[in-house]
Amino acid sequence: MRFFSDNAAPVHPAVLRAIAAADSLDTAYDGDRWSKALDERFSAVFETEVRVLWVPSGTAANCLALAALCPPHGSIVCHREAHIQNDECGAPEFYTHGAKLLLADGDGAKLTPAGVADVLDRQRYDVHQQRPHALSITNATEYGRVYTPAEVAALGTLAKARTLGFHMDGARFANAVVATGASPADLTWRGGVDALSFGFVKNGGMNAEALVFFDTALAADTLYRRKRAGHLLSKGRYLAAQLLAMLDDDVWLDCARAANAGAALLAQAAGARLLHPVEANEVFLRVTAEEAAALRAAGFDFYDWGVGEARLVVSWNQRAEDIRPLADAIASLA
Amino acid sequence: MRFFSDNAAPVHPAVLRAIAAADSLDTAYDGDRWSKALDERFSAVFETEVRVLWVPSGTAANCLALAALCPPHGSIVCHREAHIQNDECGAPEFYTHGAKLLLADGDGAKLTPAGVADVLDRQRYDVHQQRPHALSITNATEYGRVYTPAEVAALGTLAKARTLGFHMDGARFANAVVATGASPADLTWRGGVDALSFGFVKNGGMNAEALVFFDTALAADTLYRRKRAGHLLSKGRYLAAQLLAMLDDDVWLDCARAANAGAALLAQAAGARLLHPVEANEVFLRVTAEEAAALRAAGFDFYDWGVGEARLVVSWNQRAEDIRPLADAIASLA
Amino acid sequence: MRFFSDNAAPVHPAVLRAIAAADSLDTAYDGDRWSKALDERFSAVFETEVRVLWVPSGTAANCLALAALCPPHGSIVCHREAHIQNDECGAPEFYTHGAKLLLADGDGAKLTPAGVADVLDRQRYDVHQQRPHALSITNATEYGRVYTPAEVAALGTLAKARTLGFHMDGARFANAVVATGASPADLTWRGGVDALSFGFVKNGGMNAEALVFFDTALAADTLYRRKRAGHLLSKGRYLAAQLLAMLDDDVWLDCARAANAGAALLAQAAGARLLHPVEANEVFLRVTAEEAAALRAAGFDFYDWGVGEARLVVSWNQRAEDIRPLADAIASLA
Amino acid sequence: MRFFSDNAAPVHPAVLRAIAAADSLDTAYDGDRWSKALDERFSAVFETEVRVLWVPSGTAANCLALAALCPPHGSIVCHREAHIQNDECGAPEFYTHGAKLLLADGDGAKLTPAGVADVLDRQRYDVHQQRPHALSITNATEYGRVYTPAEVAALGTLAKARTLGFHMDGARFANAVVATGASPADLTWRGGVDALSFGFVKNGGMNAEALVFFDTALAADTLYRRKRAGHLLSKGRYLAAQLLAMLDDDVWLDCARAANAGAALLAQAAGARLLHPVEANEVFLRVTAEEAAALRAAGFDFYDWGVGEARLVVSWNQRAEDIRPLADAIASLA
Repeated sequence: MRFFSDNAAPVHPAVLRAIAAADSLDTAYDGDRWSKALDERFSAVFETEVRVLWVPSGTAANCLALAALCPPHGSIVCHREAHIQNDECGAPEFYTHGAKLLLADGDGAKLTPAGVADVLDRQRYDVHQQRPHALSITNATEYGRVYTPAEVAALGTLAKARTLGFHMDGARFANAVVATGASPADLTWRGGVDALSFGFVKNGGMNAEALVFFDTALAADTLYRRKRAGHLLSKGRYLAAQLLAMLDDDVWLDCARAANAGAALLAQAAGARLLHPVEANEVFLRVTAEEAAALRAAGFDFYDWGVGEARLVVSWNQRAEDIRPLADAIASLA
Repeated sequence: MRFFSDNAAPVHPAVLRAIAAADSLDTAYDGDRWSKALDERFSAVFETEVRVLWVPSGTAANCLALAALCPPHGSIVCHREAHIQNDECGAPEFYTHGAKLLLADGDGAKLTPAGVADVLDRQRYDVHQQRPHALSITNATEYGRVYTPAEVAALGTLAKARTLGFHMDGARFANAVVATGASPADLTWRGGVDALSFGFVKNGGMNAEALVFFDTALAADTLYRRKRAGHLLSKGRYLAAQLLAMLDDDVWLDCARAANAGAALLAQAAGARLLHPVEANEVFLRVTAEEAAALRAAGFDFYDWGVGEARLVVSWNQRAEDIRPLADAIASLA
Repeated sequence: MRFFSDNAAPVHPAVLRAIAAADSLDTAYDGDRWSKALDERFSAVFETEVRVLWVPSGTAANCLALAALCPPHGSIVCHREAHIQNDECGAPEFYTHGAKLLLADGDGAKLTPAGVADVLDRQRYDVHQQRPHALSITNATEYGRVYTPAEVAALGTLAKARTLGFHMDGARFANAVVATGASPADLTWRGGVDALSFGFVKNGGMNAEALVFFDTALAADTLYRRKRAGHLLSKGRYLAAQLLAMLDDDVWLDCARAANAGAALLAQAAGARLLHPVEANEVFLRVTAEEAAALRAAGFDFYDWGVGEARLVVSWNQRAEDIRPLADAIASLA
Repeated sequence: MRFFSDNAAPVHPAVLRAIAAADSLDTAYDGDRWSKALDERFSAVFETEVRVLWVPSGTAANCLALAALCPPHGSIVCHREAHIQNDECGAPEFYTHGAKLLLADGDGAKLTPAGVADVLDRQRYDVHQQRPHALSITNATEYGRVYTPAEVAALGTLAKARTLGFHMDGARFANAVVATGASPADLTWRGGVDALSFGFVKNGGMNAEALVFFDTALAADTLYRRKRAGHLLSKGRYLAAQLLAMLDDDVWLDCARAANAGAALLAQAAGARLLHPVEANEVFLRVTAEEAAALRAAGFDFYDWGVGEARLVVSWNQRAEDIRPLADAIASLA
């Protein structure tokens, strides 16, 4: 009964099967048949030509994307509570060689054109400040909110007008696709996104994420940067196979659908306790210390989100019957 | 019949089993029970207290080690043909933020105290040059040569005398252990090694390598650097489990023993064609373009090593009966 | 009648004389007699043993200090409006290889222990965030406020308790010394400061600033970093001579005294228009666009500080009779 | 009687006069009238439109140029004895964020197309190695040799064919111009040079060098990089004025002519002792330890260049009568 993190969940059986199936002799690095299939497979998903690189972590995907979009002397607008700002130990600064993150505000870690413009307008555009070169958003956000295609497009329009590259951290992209019912294309490049960190690990993958370039010209240098960062694994076929397995038969969508549905159950039970609308697979609650202790005593594991708040994350493998006990426990508090 | 690279070989069944077995709910990153078991398990292997971090690639292991040993304004002595110099796209420079590699010479990519001292003595020790801070050797070397404990210790003594940290790239450490018959301890810290990149992937692993610190004080900052580089995978248990599985029942030694034995067979067949003594699992041959073509026509795959030379690598899963056809084909050349 | 910037003022005659006097044959870089005299001369000023490096810019001084105090994976607490955050184009990130600035609040760009603690307490101390390693304050601040010895010491105590290095950006250190009447020692190391960027250029110097290490152990590596950053000028004697000339006969204090006095005159005239108490040589005023235009039409030059605000800076060479016309013009507004 | 270094010589009186003359109120950084005049003035010298940035050191000029020409994951071909490799403490690696220097050979630190091609041809052009992006030569070289326009053009042709940017370290560019009798244009952009570090300090300047971009598109980002590196001095007018003063009335050529002539005198005296043809203002001699000691006892100061070799550098201010005593002393050895 763990709601601590979708990182702690097991991997989907299709992924394990794919790994076993990839265990035949092939060539090293990304010269294998699985890696070579990625561009075409993801292009189909996105209804446009994309270039895709596997990497073993979301941090690597995010920061390779940012390095492709922003020079060391530039800056990147993101939300004040973005993962790239708060949870990657400065990986963006490492990969970009010192670009600065400019922090914007917005409810539920969601950025709006007004919030972004406010940050941009406070910058001076002279050599004494790092000029904004990129915008990065997270979909679903760090608080489980989602951007609709229209919201993405509005930001994309702003980004284009201000000559910013546009990155989407999609650690929970699948959950956003399911939540909005939008096509992957509408949620990304049709809204102006240049690069997407397409997350699989939180959604049932083991250790493969996809860095998807809609601006395909960005891929060439990134191949060098990936190698240089130690992320061109020598047996890359085991990563590529995971990605392909999750795209097949829409495993990625099924997993996200299950997780979102579980979170909706919890949201219903939580009612007025909710700190944010529940749109994906995360639920943020107001709970007293005593209530939190009571839930834990009943066997539920979760993350304290500061004082008086809790984060519950539903994983791909938790079904209604796994969720209901927690939903009931929450409903019966006070 | 592939002798192209040990990176192209499949993973050992024990590794696959361990991954499946690790597929239970546990905590994220490196907080899981498998990751937590590494220090003790590797300490037993090395007969001393070590600190161990898993990483998904040898480049990450090497360069995190180098960053721990050398500041940006320092330099690192390595062989002119070292992997860190020629095959990592500048990862050492990326991770160390611009330290310089000082290139030493030596037969078969092996360094000697004299060769290292020669480089050190040509440096000026003023602020106009990057002062040497570390020595890095590869065991087994890029040409399949091995350092004995005495050879390691001689370099370790020099390193200590010159206040250099001492790193060993052990991408094929298992092969060196088997080849020398030495204990892991004798081959490393007893000879003065501070940090070891202990390779598993070329030896039957999937995507987990161990960065072993004998100078345990170096580990603390490296935990931050690993995260910052995107190498703290969120489901680290699948990496830790691989490492533990290969240490159990000496799988790592069995794999290396098989590969070394296969190379010995090829060496015997090659005779005077050998460019380097064969001590581990790599065989470098003199072959004409016609001979190479003939071998390939017979179904053998390998790497051209410059003009007139070929590299054959034996993998953990190739048995005598897999090797013999190539041995015979080589013997029957000319 | 320019009040635009103390950077735009001429250099003090003593500096020009010193440069001419240094124009004799001596050795290169910092091997000359002037450079060699710095440690002793500054040690006398600070009543303790210090190590001093000349550099040609305040940005270089600040960022070499920060690099000495904070690793790439660390963070530095500073004010949200600090020069290092807003006016150095990411030089701190460049020199530290990607450390993050954590932004604290406080009136007039002054930090308080509470403001700093608030930032520190919001950090998580795990590998997912860059751990705070340093605190940086500016004295006099970017709004012309000064820290007293007691205020410095309170921050120094906090820094020590939290194991933070303590840097002071003293681009206008002389103005702070004059304003507080404190000794240089009381304003720095007695309050816990480890490294000071001691500014001369805004105070009558030409192109030499002093980086003063009270924690003398920090100097050794910084010598390499200075060289590596291109700041070890080959004819360093012309920089060292400037610094010595300004320390001689307390030129530095006379210059700051004149500038502060001029600002006080303007402050008196400005009355309720003042945005910040005037303690050093900068005056921030509320002025309408019409008023600003009127002042400019009358021949006064200054900097627009956002909408409806103006910054007036008094330079070392402006005397009461140079100031009075502007004071009168301000007084007669409205 | 110092022949230790042209860095140790005094500055030219015209430079001191220019500094004094620039000592009037003007704006800060590079907004002043002197800085603004540079592009036009240097464009006249080079007979083409150039963009020019002042910097206070040759290392800054070199490394800003290299950063403009080579990404972090690229490499730069230079001579094994180049200043950027041996005398800048890794500044190229710092400014480029870890590009690698590829070392080529050639007599007298001069590169030839064959020597460069040899290095280029030994590279593998895959993601495992840093792809060559730039070529850097020094004119006059570290051994006082000069490249003629034809030699520059041959290298420029190669650079273009291999899509390499082309940088010239002209720390002693004036000496090369005088030595070859070529026009500045013929010695640079007409031969394919994209960026020139045009040295003034060794030739009578105080602390200003010119970074000249013939590929003017490279200047825009470099303005940010200069600021970020702490090299946008706040009173830049004192640097710009130096450069203008030395271009006026061909002071720069007169200074170099004098220095070259002095070196020629010494070369004549040295005869068979010469290690390299003397073409600029440096003389490398074979001398025994006893001979060196004898020269020093006679009051001559110079640099030991390894064992049994000495480097004598003639400065802009040394006239025939200053040189002759040393020439005579050398002639009378043995």
